[in-house]
Amino acid sequence: MGGERYVVGVDFGTLSARALVVRVRDGAEVGTAVAEYPHGVIDRALPGGAELPPDWALQVPADYLEVLRTAVPAALRAADVSAADVIGIGTDFTACTVLPVLADGTPLCDLPEYRGRPHAYVKLWKHHAAQPQADRINDIARERGEGWLPRYGGRISSEWQFAKALQLLEEDPEIYHRMDRWAEAADWIIWRLTGSYVKNACTAGYKGIYQDGHYPRAEFLRALNPGFASFADDKLAGPIGQLGDAAGTLTPEAAAWTGLPAGITVAVGNVDAHVTAPAAQAVRPGQMLAIMGTSTCHVMNAKVLAEVPGMCGVVDGGIVRGLFGYEAGQSGVGDIFAWFAQNFVPGGYAADAQRAGRSLQEHLTALCRAQPVGAHGLLALDWESGNRSVLVDHTLSGLVLGMTLATRPEDVYRALIEATAFGTRKIVETFGASGVPVTEFVAAGGLLQNTFLMQTYADVLRMPIATCASAQAPALGAAIHAAVAAGAYRDVPAAGEAMGGRGARTYIPDRAAADAYDRIYAEYSRLHDHFGRGGNDVMHRLHALRREALS
Amino acid sequence: MGGERYVVGVDFGTLSARALVVRVRDGAEVGTAVAEYPHGVIDRALPGGAELPPDWALQVPADYLEVLRTAVPAALRAADVSAADVIGIGTDFTACTVLPVLADGTPLCDLPEYRGRPHAYVKLWKHHAAQPQADRINDIARERGEGWLPRYGGRISSEWQFAKALQLLEEDPEIYHRMDRWAEAADWIIWRLTGSYVKNACTAGYKGIYQDGHYPRAEFLRALNPGFASFADDKLAGPIGQLGDAAGTLTPEAAAWTGLPAGITVAVGNVDAHVTAPAAQAVRPGQMLAIMGTSTCHVMNAKVLAEVPGMCGVVDGGIVRGLFGYEAGQSGVGDIFAWFAQNFVPGGYAADAQRAGRSLQEHLTALCRAQPVGAHGLLALDWESGNRSVLVDHTLSGLVLGMTLATRPEDVYRALIEATAFGTRKIVETFGASGVPVTEFVAAGGLLQNTFLMQTYADVLRMPIATCASAQAPALGAAIHAAVAAGAYRDVPAAGEAMGGRGARTYIPDRAAADAYDRIYAEYSRLHDHFGRGGNDVMHRLHALRREALS
Repeated sequence: MGGERYVVGVDFGTLSARALVVRVRDGAEVGTAVAEYPHGVIDRALPGGAELPPDWALQVPADYLEVLRTAVPAALRAADVSAADVIGIGTDFTACTVLPVLADGTPLCDLPEYRGRPHAYVKLWKHHAAQPQADRINDIARERGEGWLPRYGGRISSEWQFAKALQLLEEDPEIYHRMDRWAEAADWIIWRLTGSYVKNACTAGYKGIYQDGHYPRAEFLRALNPGFASFADDKLAGPIGQLGDAAGTLTPEAAAWTGLPAGITVAVGNVDAHVTAPAAQAVRPGQMLAIMGTSTCHVMNAKVLAEVPGMCGVVDGGIVRGLFGYEAGQSGVGDIFAWFAQNFVPGGYAADAQRAGRSLQEHLTALCRAQPVGAHGLLALDWESGNRSVLVDHTLSGLVLGMTLATRPEDVYRALIEATAFGTRKIVETFGASGVPVTEFVAAGGLLQNTFLMQTYADVLRMPIATCASAQAPALGAAIHAAVAAGAYRDVPAAGEAMGGRGARTYIPDRAAADAYDRIYAEYSRLHDHFGRGGNDVMHRLHALRREALS
Repeated sequence: MGGERYVVGVDFGTLSARALVVRVRDGAEVGTAVAEYPHGVIDRALPGGAELPPDWALQVPADYLEVLRTAVPAALRAADVSAADVIGIGTDFTACTVLPVLADGTPLCDLPEYRGRPHAYVKLWKHHAAQPQADRINDIARERGEGWLPRYGGRISSEWQFAKALQLLEEDPEIYHRMDRWAEAADWIIWRLTGSYVKNACTAGYKGIYQDGHYPRAEFLRALNPGFASFADDKLAGPIGQLGDAAGTLTPEAAAWTGLPAGITVAVGNVDAHVTAPAAQAVRPGQMLAIMGTSTCHVMNAKVLAEVPGMCGVVDGGIVRGLFGYEAGQSGVGDIFAWFAQNFVPGGYAADAQRAGRSLQEHLTALCRAQPVGAHGLLALDWESGNRSVLVDHTLSGLVLGMTLATRPEDVYRALIEATAFGTRKIVETFGASGVPVTEFVAAGGLLQNTFLMQTYADVLRMPIATCASAQAPALGAAIHAAVAAGAYRDVPAAGEAMGGRGARTYIPDRAAADAYDRIYAEYSRLHDHFGRGGNDVMHRLHALRREALS
């Protein structure tokens, strides 16, 4: 059809990247392709090299370029769309995923002399080894009354730029001093595509403590470590682009990688969760969007600036220009289910699943979904990957309670699903109690496929759950931002109205189930506060003992 | 060899019975055989009948006779011993395992009209559905200041005769009124062998609240339930035999079942744990014997009568005549490991185990044994089958804490082993603090095969662990009692000196491991008290919710 224009969205996830070709006029998804990162997540040992301590998680930046070379051309082929009709490309990334680079963007791990140095690699969002540094940042910021701290719920995370950079400085100062920029992968990929380094407002705000036009002051940074005083000035500062703006145009080199025309618009970088809001038509104040996958990210706009305990952050224009964007998150969700299914389910179940023509997790779901609420007698805390909101503590760990000799894997699987739903309720209630009420709950992401899980969330939250129509919502969101950057729409909300959409299914809470879950949620809350708020710091002590034992 | 005399010991376990032919002179074990109960443990539904509520565990009494018919003749054949050289038979049983019978010993479940009634069957020791009755018994006994209560550590168990009988009365009064005797299986089997009903001093004391020559008074029983006032007089009272005495002689009918000569001595019934003490040469005051298997039972003699909080009981002559016999226990030990291995270990592990020519539990042990103490970061409470000592609460449940996405099955398996060792230490410390110090720790039972587990116990206890030489110690103990009953030895300790024995291996604590375990034990104690002593009764509430959900 002559005259149709397209945009490409590329969603860089934890294990793979998805490219999606989208029609500008109506958001139709005309072709897609996925490519896995050759090195995946590195959490045990460097390729052919040193073993990593516990809590590390690294990636290889060349993998990000590699997937551009395969997924984008494959998506174009699948779409049967001429590259000449593509007017822009947008991306989104996991965050805070961050790497040390030279002034020209070369990752330090690409230098032969640093190949064997763990600190030269990308620190993935779920790298949790900077907790001591995060604790110090929080303690000193609290003592000094730093004004930005309440913008992050009172605690910044070990996952973010400052904690990870301070760990780098203190554990491998040579790498720290050699790096010219401490770059978010979200911005590094735009740098590779355009040749210019434009930092996006979203990660600068949420992960880089950039508030009211500046980073934390040198005086504060010096208090953390004298060598850290000029970190913000030397390694971070630079031009910041707003979401939906153009960062530049596609270089000939990047055009050759992707098969797209050189010179088309490249949108400012973005984050997987935040980019999704317009795709799910969830950009109005009070609409909380949960992107539910490996982990879950919650984003919501509001007209007011409020301080929500334990939220990840509030950033002016962090989701769309002109509103305060709030973010919260659960660091382990689908990750926990996958870990359990892979490690704690006997072979007989796998065989039964195969016979029934379903995945192991589908099989576990089928076995547990008919249970009355409470019948398994279990209660879990969803902290196998720590707690991002509202406790902001990555040395917390998982708990399962209530087992008897009659407990079966599907019971624990269900208890883990319920635990993540309780974790979500904790976040929703905390926002409500802080003057930023959640008036509508919208879900997107891979976990939408599990209808039992979605119904459980509706029952636990006592709220209807609307769904995003797109099964690849972040990539669609990235494409929407590309369309805005290329000038096809006035702004991101307008593009979302035209190109995003809601799914046909809304999950309505069942009153009896909700009543029963209220009782179990009360138990969850008690354990949550006991183990998460100082009643018993056993998880911290076991974590320390573990590090000691393995050192 | 002319003139050698033999005795037969039969150990009635949870799933099977073992017969052992033993030489009277020196305890040599010359032949053995095992037979499984055809119906095993009934915990889901009656054979071809009604589903059971949670926490039930029943058996079929005909199974006990069936195994006599197969295991005893098979053991004789294996021994290549002439039945004519056998001078006596002794038995031991799980306890409190109890059944309603008519005046002639006929089990009510053998009456056609009661075949479909769960309450007509044997209630196995681990039937835990009488907790509400046990709670009431404890509350009222405490209010009234009943003198026997401190003899049971301040709480009688839902596993025992009174709680189970009260449940019977209240849930199926017709069966209750129809029964003439409420018989321990340990005594019922002797009744079947001899034709006469002699109750053994051990179960009468530990499970039947028989103290200082009488049962609890009618006045107390009336306070529990008016219909229960004459329970002790009507359904329990009867002649009591001391351990090591003869109960009678083998009937022709029982001779036909077993292939043994009619008229030989049959020893008074006994309990699996208590019967084992002479086999392990652990009858002197201060020697604690742990019989470690599906569950663990701890028995120890003392010259003094003391009140130990949470012990199962103290009975004059409860282990050997002339000393106060103390009992404590852990209701789930090997059971927990088996449950975990069967339900929570993926197929790949089973395949690896098979390739390595070892059982799945041996494989898990091999994978976890080299870990430094604390390296898995986990802590568990060993309550999947409730807690017998020192909390005496069967509605408690299991807990595992500290999981991360790096946690593997062998880590949890090791944490469960450690948890049971911590549970043992809790018991040893409680005895010591109550004026009955444990001066030597001796272990018997199936778990001796796991040398890693045994070393872990030594490290956690900070005590050497001596071992029983016999791999079938309860059956040997039963045979020792048969030899005494038949007049071959003066008393049980003398027979134990001649016929029992210690294994070559003693486990010596490793100081560094013991130091590390001290720290984790402190954490265990904190969780133990928090969840077991009222800090948070979540396990009780989840248990109640479960019963509600399934009702």
